[in-house]
Amino acid sequence: MTATDIVAAIGEGRTTCEAVARACLERIAAREPDVHAFAHLDPDASITTARALDRSGARGPLHGVPFGVKDIIDTFDMPTEWGTPIHKGRQPGRDAACVALARKAGGLMLGKTVTTEFANLHPSPTCNPRDLKRTPGGSSSGSAAAVADFMLPVAIGTQTTGSTIRPASFCGVFGYRPTWGEHRLHGVMEASGSLDTLGVLARSVEDIALIRDVMLGIAPEPVADLPRPPRIGFCRSHVWDQVEPSTRALVEDAAARLARAGASVHDMDLPPGCERLNDAHRTISSFEFARTFTYEIENHWDEISETLRGGRLHDGIHGSFEKYIEALGIAETCRRRLDAVFDSYDLLLAPAAFGEAPEGMFAFAGVPLYQIWTTLHLPAISLPAFTGPNGMPVGVQLLAKRHADRTLFAGARWAWRALMQ
Amino acid sequence: MTATDIVAAIGEGRTTCEAVARACLERIAAREPDVHAFAHLDPDASITTARALDRSGARGPLHGVPFGVKDIIDTFDMPTEWGTPIHKGRQPGRDAACVALARKAGGLMLGKTVTTEFANLHPSPTCNPRDLKRTPGGSSSGSAAAVADFMLPVAIGTQTTGSTIRPASFCGVFGYRPTWGEHRLHGVMEASGSLDTLGVLARSVEDIALIRDVMLGIAPEPVADLPRPPRIGFCRSHVWDQVEPSTRALVEDAAARLARAGASVHDMDLPPGCERLNDAHRTISSFEFARTFTYEIENHWDEISETLRGGRLHDGIHGSFEKYIEALGIAETCRRRLDAVFDSYDLLLAPAAFGEAPEGMFAFAGVPLYQIWTTLHLPAISLPAFTGPNGMPVGVQLLAKRHADRTLFAGARWAWRALMQ
Repeated sequence: MTATDIVAAIGEGRTTCEAVARACLERIAAREPDVHAFAHLDPDASITTARALDRSGARGPLHGVPFGVKDIIDTFDMPTEWGTPIHKGRQPGRDAACVALARKAGGLMLGKTVTTEFANLHPSPTCNPRDLKRTPGGSSSGSAAAVADFMLPVAIGTQTTGSTIRPASFCGVFGYRPTWGEHRLHGVMEASGSLDTLGVLARSVEDIALIRDVMLGIAPEPVADLPRPPRIGFCRSHVWDQVEPSTRALVEDAAARLARAGASVHDMDLPPGCERLNDAHRTISSFEFARTFTYEIENHWDEISETLRGGRLHDGIHGSFEKYIEALGIAETCRRRLDAVFDSYDLLLAPAAFGEAPEGMFAFAGVPLYQIWTTLHLPAISLPAFTGPNGMPVGVQLLAKRHADRTLFAGARWAWRALMQ
Repeated sequence: MTATDIVAAIGEGRTTCEAVARACLERIAAREPDVHAFAHLDPDASITTARALDRSGARGPLHGVPFGVKDIIDTFDMPTEWGTPIHKGRQPGRDAACVALARKAGGLMLGKTVTTEFANLHPSPTCNPRDLKRTPGGSSSGSAAAVADFMLPVAIGTQTTGSTIRPASFCGVFGYRPTWGEHRLHGVMEASGSLDTLGVLARSVEDIALIRDVMLGIAPEPVADLPRPPRIGFCRSHVWDQVEPSTRALVEDAAARLARAGASVHDMDLPPGCERLNDAHRTISSFEFARTFTYEIENHWDEISETLRGGRLHDGIHGSFEKYIEALGIAETCRRRLDAVFDSYDLLLAPAAFGEAPEGMFAFAGVPLYQIWTTLHLPAISLPAFTGPNGMPVGVQLLAKRHADRTLFAGARWAWRALMQ
């Protein structure tokens, strides 16, 4: 069941919060030994909370929906350890804004989902539930795996590069990265503040729209119907030749099917300068990351993975401030140019990954693709539309203008229906 | 002594970290019962740390400089309580990025300075050291009072409206608000993420430049000399008639003196649309604040002051999302228009406050002035240049283009020398 289904079923008395929570916990008990999606669970406490929700007179828009929270997002009742032994047992005294808002709406915080170390490259133990030999993608690994494996209807993640869109594509669920800046990130571990957003992993566009409004602290609005089929810009971008041929064929196929369904689909190029977004992302994220974690660098260097020490931290510690400020300027200029692109298009269509989830646990394929779209601050959805040559999911990505997240939802639902015909 | 003096004196063997720390602690012991600048102190631990610095071979750019930290900024060795009984005893497990960077540079974290409740309007117990019947200004009340009263050479604050520039003007110290976005704010309580910055309270422009570079995690650069006297735009703005006549006269006098010293000073108006920045600031800050503190609203409503519940929280909880997004757009448009203004000017000159610190403990005069400049994301310095009719300090504010903070420092030093002639 989707979150929307659960709310309806409880509202109509067809089930209870407790029954839904028990169903999730049973699925988790059966599958967690293989999938390793969770960093923390407390089944007894969850059942107690579910019963309290059943007894409560309140009926929030997320009433009774179990949700997972990436383990870089603070929760007052479970530890938040950032995927590192340095913060083992770290117990925040309050909820992050997004968690408090989801609970206020009646959601049931069921568990903390596994993150890679500091939401960076060093892999987590989580496996892809579609094939345990493969990565679920990172860094919101546990959030995507738990939703894909029917342990949870929705989970909260984050994205700084591709940490929501990538695992959504690899695991075969809907993934959403909101417009940068719209959600409060207090209580969420910062990786790179100029790029970080929340993320949502879910099983429908409607669920994404629901939990997005809840986490904004506003009254949820249903996904709108488009007044006419969308104008879609098909943007292969300068990373197209890094996309696997089989995935290129699937994205081309998506473009053709959307056109057949009535959309106007035109090839489009990114505005001039956008090829510099990859370097800009690398510069900004490394510079900021290395400063955010000064406490850990100075006091716990030996407990940081070699992957991180020799990678992003090395780059960031030695990064030039002038180059960092230049990169912020490049990003701002490109964002402004993209605004004008949306005079001609309602949505952009792009790959959601370079290919299927690879074998092994390295969770970070496709970085150049995500660097572009994340640095542009655009809202994005990955639709789990396809299956690749190895039987693994392959997503397609839709993007909209900054702050046009509702247009994105309407367009994504239209596209999903068109692709499923 | 300034921070720069302390570093030089210790470097030349004329004093020690311990002696400097003891001098600060003695001043604090003498004055704190009247001024109430500190939320937490641990003199014995500070002396131990100072001795360790004296024994250490390392000589960072802030070596031996005692500094204070506003009590909304996390420290691993002292509580961080956000000015609210709700978080009494809250002990973070790590330092905020800015604190870790200052310690890495050899700085001595001497104490947590008093903040108003959640860095919002509800007053703190801190008094203005120049006149104990008057407010020091908020919300970085303790940081400004401690520096003004020679308890500390520098202190870290924050600004979301006028929380650094205001108390700097009221207490008679140098205050600095950096370009929005340059410093990592992880470990700093968010008030309104789209507006929040760090702040610095200090006793010279050189000290501000030093601690700014330290908190950016870059090698400090000395304040540059201007190649020629600056081009200054004197911007009274649409709030000018709310400035007290005596302060208007002082700012006019500053403009005249800077012109006599060789600057080209021209009256300038804000670009069209900037009169909407006041509403935009109010909308953005209230909307974001009310969501950031959802946990406290839901779980500790009765422990929040009536000032905050009936003010910013009321406005934010009932705020419209559409109006919030519109306000973000207004702010972005105005920022872009201001960029062009700096083709003609190196610096802007404006009041730093509507007048002297008023009697009583309400710490928040001058809001409309700060709403403009803070929402524009410009870097700003308040120079403690004048004394008002009641013998209290009155600052003047200089501003520069976004990310031109080094130009601001060079111009502020030039202006300070010109004004002190």
